[in-house]
Amino acid sequence: MSDKLQKTAITPATHTAPPAKFSHGVRKGNILQVAGQVGFLPAVPGQSPTPAGPTLREQTLQTLANVKAILEEGGARWEDVMMLRVYLTDVDHFAEMNEIYNEYFADLTEAPAARTTVYVGLPAGLLIEIDALAVLG
Amino acid sequence: MSDKLQKTAITPATHTAPPAKFSHGVRKGNILQVAGQVGFLPAVPGQSPTPAGPTLREQTLQTLANVKAILEEGGARWEDVMMLRVYLTDVDHFAEMNEIYNEYFADLTEAPAARTTVYVGLPAGLLIEIDALAVLG
Amino acid sequence: MSDKLQKTAITPATHTAPPAKFSHGVRKGNILQVAGQVGFLPAVPGQSPTPAGPTLREQTLQTLANVKAILEEGGARWEDVMMLRVYLTDVDHFAEMNEIYNEYFADLTEAPAARTTVYVGLPAGLLIEIDALAVLG
Repeated sequence: MSDKLQKTAITPATHTAPPAKFSHGVRKGNILQVAGQVGFLPAVPGQSPTPAGPTLREQTLQTLANVKAILEEGGARWEDVMMLRVYLTDVDHFAEMNEIYNEYFADLTEAPAARTTVYVGLPAGLLIEIDALAVLG
Repeated sequence: MSDKLQKTAITPATHTAPPAKFSHGVRKGNILQVAGQVGFLPAVPGQSPTPAGPTLREQTLQTLANVKAILEEGGARWEDVMMLRVYLTDVDHFAEMNEIYNEYFADLTEAPAARTTVYVGLPAGLLIEIDALAVLG
Repeated sequence: MSDKLQKTAITPATHTAPPAKFSHGVRKGNILQVAGQVGFLPAVPGQSPTPAGPTLREQTLQTLANVKAILEEGGARWEDVMMLRVYLTDVDHFAEMNEIYNEYFADLTEAPAARTTVYVGLPAGLLIEIDALAVLG
């Protein structure tokens, strides 16, 4: 059918290869889903993934940059995001994460996304993970 | 374009201001996303957010009321909800939460939403958090 | 209205009854949401739900089979899945889960779904839970 929706993988050149058979992002019709991103620096061939730094600020900003790269590669903007899921490892990081989050989104030109923040375990050294659901159009 | 989808923030008057730049709910087209809700009582100006009570029952019912307020403000009903994500802090709360959940949804007139329940950390004093994805139409 | 979307519960015959008033899956329009699945074997009348086995491999394969049964009952394939949320209880299970995941999805004919993996608590004996969001069409 001519109106069959295509599902497309979104793989920014800067991203490290996923550690398993999943996509950093997928788009189908006007739905774009971003996989859980962490604070890994842009990929360097031959190097294993490296976090932007040990601090919550460094990792949060890099994680948001990684989400944004996938959104843009898929034709979306932050303004298209409906939901951000924020996974922290430490309840005491909530206030600082919110500060960074507010600075980061200060210039948003539409209603901000909904958000859920919960506290989970993450691999050693990682303090934050974020995924996103966007609706384009 | 006349058919461009608008993203709208959903902010019930009863709700405390979000602690960061996110929306309690957003709607775009026929998709409505409710942010993670906890058992905070309706906002009182000048007071910080206060849970409905210390018990799982009090917090669960208030949390569901908070989700419902956002759904209704966005033009949706419980029947439009596709997915509820329930975050508990204690595995031993599962059975009691299910009892409360079943009472609460006893009168649902359509297929109930799908649901995922997992056990995470939440800020001190909070026992449950719930978010929701609805499809209207 | 003739174009009103219907919400339909998806309940494979093999599945144990949900422990509360939720659906194993729901479909509305071209959106299909699969509830959190664990590694329970196909239901046997009169028996309580039983995990496929104690190992991560047994539970992961059964969990994926349970997700797949709901997708298929709802008219979807793995290729339609946009997002898989994987909940593990142990960070040390990540590498092995990825191996199993890659074997399982080796024959996927389209872009794989996005994925988020986080580490949470689950009821005793359960090592993995997975839910899924699919867009058909």
